[in-house]
Amino acid sequence: MEPTDYFSRVAIPVDSAIALLLERTPGPEGSTLLPLLDALHRIAGEDLAARIPLPPFDNSPLDGFALRHTDSAGAGKDKPVFLRVVETIYAGDLPRKSLAPGACARVMTGAALPEGATCVIPWEDTDNHPDTVGIFHALAAHQNYRFHGEVMRQGQGILRKGERITSAHVGLLAAQGFIEIPVFARPRVGILSTGSELMSGPEPLIPGKIYDSNRYLLAARVLTLGAEPVWTSAIADDPALIARAVEELLETCDCIISTGGVSVGAHDYMPQVGSYINAEPLFRRVQMKPGGWVTALYKDTKIILCLSGNPFAAAMSFDLLAGPVIRRLAGAAPVLPQKIPGVLQEPFPKASPQGRFLYARREGKEVFLPQAGYVSGSLASLISCNCILQIPPGKGPVEPGDTVEVIPLSDGPVSPEFHPV
Amino acid sequence: MEPTDYFSRVAIPVDSAIALLLERTPGPEGSTLLPLLDALHRIAGEDLAARIPLPPFDNSPLDGFALRHTDSAGAGKDKPVFLRVVETIYAGDLPRKSLAPGACARVMTGAALPEGATCVIPWEDTDNHPDTVGIFHALAAHQNYRFHGEVMRQGQGILRKGERITSAHVGLLAAQGFIEIPVFARPRVGILSTGSELMSGPEPLIPGKIYDSNRYLLAARVLTLGAEPVWTSAIADDPALIARAVEELLETCDCIISTGGVSVGAHDYMPQVGSYINAEPLFRRVQMKPGGWVTALYKDTKIILCLSGNPFAAAMSFDLLAGPVIRRLAGAAPVLPQKIPGVLQEPFPKASPQGRFLYARREGKEVFLPQAGYVSGSLASLISCNCILQIPPGKGPVEPGDTVEVIPLSDGPVSPEFHPV
Repeated sequence: MEPTDYFSRVAIPVDSAIALLLERTPGPEGSTLLPLLDALHRIAGEDLAARIPLPPFDNSPLDGFALRHTDSAGAGKDKPVFLRVVETIYAGDLPRKSLAPGACARVMTGAALPEGATCVIPWEDTDNHPDTVGIFHALAAHQNYRFHGEVMRQGQGILRKGERITSAHVGLLAAQGFIEIPVFARPRVGILSTGSELMSGPEPLIPGKIYDSNRYLLAARVLTLGAEPVWTSAIADDPALIARAVEELLETCDCIISTGGVSVGAHDYMPQVGSYINAEPLFRRVQMKPGGWVTALYKDTKIILCLSGNPFAAAMSFDLLAGPVIRRLAGAAPVLPQKIPGVLQEPFPKASPQGRFLYARREGKEVFLPQAGYVSGSLASLISCNCILQIPPGKGPVEPGDTVEVIPLSDGPVSPEFHPV
Repeated sequence: MEPTDYFSRVAIPVDSAIALLLERTPGPEGSTLLPLLDALHRIAGEDLAARIPLPPFDNSPLDGFALRHTDSAGAGKDKPVFLRVVETIYAGDLPRKSLAPGACARVMTGAALPEGATCVIPWEDTDNHPDTVGIFHALAAHQNYRFHGEVMRQGQGILRKGERITSAHVGLLAAQGFIEIPVFARPRVGILSTGSELMSGPEPLIPGKIYDSNRYLLAARVLTLGAEPVWTSAIADDPALIARAVEELLETCDCIISTGGVSVGAHDYMPQVGSYINAEPLFRRVQMKPGGWVTALYKDTKIILCLSGNPFAAAMSFDLLAGPVIRRLAGAAPVLPQKIPGVLQEPFPKASPQGRFLYARREGKEVFLPQAGYVSGSLASLISCNCILQIPPGKGPVEPGDTVEVIPLSDGPVSPEFHPV
């Protein structure tokens, strides 16, 4: 049977392709508790909220003296008010006395405030002696006064299920006494490059061959999505060998991404592999350029997504089609690529009957193409890109000033702190 | 000796503080080779450039027939040109024949093109039989023809020393046959929380105490910077205990970040700890709010940076002062925070005599404050922030529409793919 006989070559819209894949992709089965710091950058397995108000008690925001503000009324530069120091309260201690009129307590930053205190005067604004303190200005009620719960109310949300956990989450959860938190397991993503032309470094290149870069590029992308890549060596163009490798990966992986063998060449075996292993064919072609030849198969509740062997096309279809699948498996929300508007700064002269996607660079609202003569297949241009620019099907050339939609990428030079432009 | 006697309490400018710290911070000692995939997100130890042109040979971008374009001249829908198929060239194989006039070769995507071929016609545009192919339109020279080196010239730069390695770098380096690459070692950063008020979860909170969040927040920030945190339990306010803990961390760490004990309270022991351990005092106060009380010490070629015990202030001085130190130790470039312009969308009504820094949220050029009544000390507001907004010393209230400078953060919700706003 010719591989091309058994499912249609008609291209389906990108959104339909994503929907077909996601309908068949389960979320994670449950979460596991990890020590809080190990949970950094993982996907939250549950909503987490504040267990206590923060701060847990009214306290002092500075080193100084807690007093009744009414006692400071009328104090002036030449007319100090003197108060009795009745105790010193260190951070971590509890006040032993409540403040009577005319009394004050020396307090350290973070110390609990005594009953009766309604404000705090900074240490450096006073004339202080062991038992007495002189005050040279009046204070308002609750001046320099930190209320319990002012930073965070009990029950206030900290982390949402599906969010990637950042250092701010880790700090806030620690402040709530969490020492371990639930995270979703990392999905295992099988990666398989096919093609008799593929070699592995560092051996010198044999004429006619190329080094396999897809395996590395996709494994690195999988890691960036918070999943675990599982790979094999590149497989030659032989449907029986490829089918065996796919079946092996199916045993331990949650989905499989392959490259190569998806077009109409004599060695484009992936659709045939699908019938060898009795997988359900989902689609074979998507309305996008580059990367429109994608064979999607489904077996044993698992997606097998077969991308182009061209590294640039493979990257694009990975980002647009495999990304949502892996995010769903990982429990990350949102699952779908988020589109934001931008303003194109450079012309892209080609018509796009199929719908076109370009790796691009976004700086604020401005969107730049990585090089003047944009070469499809130029993996090199990817280095400086941080988003995907979408040109809808049927749209003609786009011009500088046109409003476009872009999908930000998470592994581009997102942080100017690290990434020289 | 009173701790406050031995170095000045006069606040120095932020830039001077960073300069003092960086003058004393060495770069990494050398790089180590790591397997290519393990190098993802590490800091590049050397410049790396292309060893071979990409593609390495002229090849076909699609499945079709390679021909001399001159042979297609005059071909039309009703006037096909027929060519002899002399061989089939698969990806990975070498052509065995050069093309004589009137001959063509069936080629697969990525296959090397035979001598004499000047273009490729797509398979689906032809009427093809085993030995003959009919062509119904003329082709231009080098139509559908991929030149060797068109994606990347030999010697073209791929990765710069100090860059964070992304999945695009990994893919490109694999395409060049690299299987391991040099990266800098991760610096070890000692983290030490001080304060008798600090407890560890999950025990219920004792009145007057709080859970230690600084240790977690800073360790998570250190990990985000690509460094390795080394921490101890929180230490009570006792200068001898703190000094011993600092000396222990100095044995194995490249720098130390502590929190607590830096202001003018009776238990603010960090300056005193500096004299206990014979460290050189660098500065004690920086022109910034929050986080202006910072005791910087230097011993055994290592920086000991003592931050405020207030988590929000600690986060701010970590990002502004410890960040550059850790990036220098890690070999990351650029070392200094990169400032970019933004347009404030909300008023910040306070005057800023000392120079003020606010965690904020940047969307395109627009800069938002995380909440209307911005509470200093509100670690909670950090969750939604992705940059630091700088208000220079002496600047009054800032208004919506004002141009401001922001420093993007690398661990905020940078990727809308992952981070619901």
